[in-house]
Amino acid sequence: MSEKQKKPQKLKARLPRGFVDRTAADIRAVDEMTAKIREVYERYGFDPVETPLFEYTDALGKFLPDADRPNEGVFSLQDDDDQWMSLRYDLTAPLARHVAENFQEIQLPYRTYRAGYVFRNEKPGPGRFRQFMQFDADTVGAAGVQADAEMCMMMADTMEALGIRRGDYVIRVNNRKVLDGVMEAIGLGGEENAGRRLTVLRAIDKLDKFGPEGVRLLLGEGRKDESGDFTKGAGLGADQIEKVLFFVGIKDYAESAAQLAELVAGTGRGAEGVDELNQIGHLVTSAGYDSDRIKIDPSVVRGLEYYTGPVFEAELQFAVTNEKGEKVVFGSVGGGGRYDGLVSRFMGQPVPATGFSIGVSRLMTALKNLGKLGQDEVVAPVLVTVMDGDTDSMGRYQRFTQALRSAGIRAEMYQGNWKKFGNQLKYADRRNCPIAIIQGGDERALGVVQIKDLIEGKRLAGEIEDNVTWREARVAQVVVSEEDMIQRVREILAHQADDRKRAGRG
Amino acid sequence: MSEKQKKPQKLKARLPRGFVDRTAADIRAVDEMTAKIREVYERYGFDPVETPLFEYTDALGKFLPDADRPNEGVFSLQDDDDQWMSLRYDLTAPLARHVAENFQEIQLPYRTYRAGYVFRNEKPGPGRFRQFMQFDADTVGAAGVQADAEMCMMMADTMEALGIRRGDYVIRVNNRKVLDGVMEAIGLGGEENAGRRLTVLRAIDKLDKFGPEGVRLLLGEGRKDESGDFTKGAGLGADQIEKVLFFVGIKDYAESAAQLAELVAGTGRGAEGVDELNQIGHLVTSAGYDSDRIKIDPSVVRGLEYYTGPVFEAELQFAVTNEKGEKVVFGSVGGGGRYDGLVSRFMGQPVPATGFSIGVSRLMTALKNLGKLGQDEVVAPVLVTVMDGDTDSMGRYQRFTQALRSAGIRAEMYQGNWKKFGNQLKYADRRNCPIAIIQGGDERALGVVQIKDLIEGKRLAGEIEDNVTWREARVAQVVVSEEDMIQRVREILAHQADDRKRAGRG
Repeated sequence: MSEKQKKPQKLKARLPRGFVDRTAADIRAVDEMTAKIREVYERYGFDPVETPLFEYTDALGKFLPDADRPNEGVFSLQDDDDQWMSLRYDLTAPLARHVAENFQEIQLPYRTYRAGYVFRNEKPGPGRFRQFMQFDADTVGAAGVQADAEMCMMMADTMEALGIRRGDYVIRVNNRKVLDGVMEAIGLGGEENAGRRLTVLRAIDKLDKFGPEGVRLLLGEGRKDESGDFTKGAGLGADQIEKVLFFVGIKDYAESAAQLAELVAGTGRGAEGVDELNQIGHLVTSAGYDSDRIKIDPSVVRGLEYYTGPVFEAELQFAVTNEKGEKVVFGSVGGGGRYDGLVSRFMGQPVPATGFSIGVSRLMTALKNLGKLGQDEVVAPVLVTVMDGDTDSMGRYQRFTQALRSAGIRAEMYQGNWKKFGNQLKYADRRNCPIAIIQGGDERALGVVQIKDLIEGKRLAGEIEDNVTWREARVAQVVVSEEDMIQRVREILAHQADDRKRAGRG
Repeated sequence: MSEKQKKPQKLKARLPRGFVDRTAADIRAVDEMTAKIREVYERYGFDPVETPLFEYTDALGKFLPDADRPNEGVFSLQDDDDQWMSLRYDLTAPLARHVAENFQEIQLPYRTYRAGYVFRNEKPGPGRFRQFMQFDADTVGAAGVQADAEMCMMMADTMEALGIRRGDYVIRVNNRKVLDGVMEAIGLGGEENAGRRLTVLRAIDKLDKFGPEGVRLLLGEGRKDESGDFTKGAGLGADQIEKVLFFVGIKDYAESAAQLAELVAGTGRGAEGVDELNQIGHLVTSAGYDSDRIKIDPSVVRGLEYYTGPVFEAELQFAVTNEKGEKVVFGSVGGGGRYDGLVSRFMGQPVPATGFSIGVSRLMTALKNLGKLGQDEVVAPVLVTVMDGDTDSMGRYQRFTQALRSAGIRAEMYQGNWKKFGNQLKYADRRNCPIAIIQGGDERALGVVQIKDLIEGKRLAGEIEDNVTWREARVAQVVVSEEDMIQRVREILAHQADDRKRAGRG
């Protein structure tokens, strides 16, 4: 190896682990989706604001997802003045910094939204990337639960704006204070129990994965998984476990509300939390959002430690087939909650805030599953082929191409090696070009061009005899004067669009 | 310091040096602009493709802007498997990696575009940021100058799509080979003269800044600037300097073409370059682009070392006032060229490519100067105020707000502390809300709401007597039944839009 190093080696083209290139289809799908989300947020009175990808590491704080390990999980580097900077791992911590830094100029309540990439320095896995996009909305400077209720309604409206039917999604709401109250009620209140509380929270968070019996083990002595690995439990007693399981097992909040209130009655924060849940329920019901859209659900435990009150989760409820071939509900596509402590870290005063974050890739996957994206199919360009490569001829082909473009028609002149004409038609075929324009010496002498309908050509070549798709064949190829080219191309494109519509693809 | 560290300190909210937050106005302006650029690129048959922000450092190569110092100027960090990764400093090197990595699947010629952030680890300065956005288009696998000619035409069309008038912009074209030919002609050919060639290139690049006399000094012994700092020159003789200055001083290519051809006649690459320039000129003229739009101009010297043939620059020619109060032409907003070597570094075969990159912030500044952005003014939300904070009343205000939103009207309920009603109207005023909805106990009993036209209110309060803006005063405040609220809000918004149009702001 060391001897070879002196020779110029061929560089290896590869992406760093956990990163991906984005295809045209994905980019267009995300653009379509984020435009619809933006429209809803704007209608709700939110304005865009964006922060850069770097923050000073200390400004990001120790609020890492599921992590009590400060500064792990982020990409960090030292600036030339020795200060540590990190790439943001979410859009909330940078917003908190932005608000604190510009506190004098900002008009509260401050209602903003933003879409952007975030980075996690974690082991990549299937579907788990180190760069991905989030789309957040936040209200800073609003202490009341009406701001949280609004977040929930906005998310419900967002789901519907994206074409997700009522019943196929639900916004689930819980309150961190109720959870705190339950902890206190089972004797796990206070600073000294922070570690055990975290273990309990993590156990609860596994409810979807392991079911109540699995969680029961994790709350007690511990749980051995199929591979024989043992996870130590929270060490709760039977009575404590029952209370926790009652709490997270609540299916119908209205039915269980009284019992829940009783459970947390002795705890100040717990009662406050139940009261806030009831208020949110009342507010959204008043505005016409019933529990089929926004549902109080005490089993929601958002992972992030910085939430201080209401927490929300947007869940898609339709079934999809997972990699094991099992039918499962699609699950969460975003969530959020109240984080009254994040901005305050920078300030000498309390600054309440609440927000919601959508996982853009995951939501896009869901919408693709539902067939709700990519309907505005982008038609490939008309290809102007090159028969002769002298500068004069090239100039003429270029003129045809520009004329098509000026008429608003997507078009390109073949830019590869023109000498192999077969390659040009192969290119048009692979690229799915709808039409090819051809002009050789004979046509040029007559001032005409040949127009090939490549879609019709394919159809004829395939000899489709299916009655449903059958219709009278168009001529797959015509010769028209140069002046008539644009008009004729327009007609063929219109025919093709009609065909697509008829075939239910348009 | 070390003693204080034990106490919890208030965190300082500040952005890392050289980074900025983006305002709503800037975000909307860039969105509007990039949408227009994208439309042109799509019409030209280009499709989007994007790469992540990280690349392995070696894949970025040593093609740093103006730099013979490899790996300086980029943000780099080591992955947990010890490989070095860097944030991309442009969009070209990552595209080259993408093409090489997916070479088997990609259909050549490969026509793509992308907008994204790039990063420079440099000393920040006024208007010089460490994160900024570029918008690139590239054709990979097209060896002929027709692909370069197309880039130039696409840039000209882009400028016009953005509302820049013909005459206010020009796409300037040169060819790196001609430059090489001139170098050879003055005896600076060959590998051994690479360093001196770079010094000459840098001198030429200062033509706009120092004028021909300054460049003459830099080509000769050197130049002392106003502060007394001395820049060592390239050490050329008088005859060599004259040839370089003739070359970069060419104003009218057609007039000087013969003399230029003679200058580089003995050099293989130089003659090839002149021939390519002539071909590009012919191609764009055939397609209707005269030299007022696309101009052969030998003084164009793009900084990047990886260009191998044609190079382009999009220049805005209208005058702006600089920070010293001088009238200057706005200058470059983007550029590009042929880079036949970049993809090949990864491959065992040559892969020609050409592309163009727009500096998004700089172009946005230009368009703002021209008043070509932000015409689609975003109207602030209608504010539903909160007179009573009990849950029932809140629910009612929330219902009004949702009803407005459902009708497509941008609206928000006041989310701050509702107890100080004055603050709500102050908020509406600062936020520029067009309308406020008010319902206290009396109105509620009657089932009515008060609608305040805040724009008209401001006008009346200001007692505008200017004849131009004068018109009959609307009533700034009405009381209507809850059912009529939406209809009335619509009418007032329509009136306000008319007024804006009349005032020439709509």
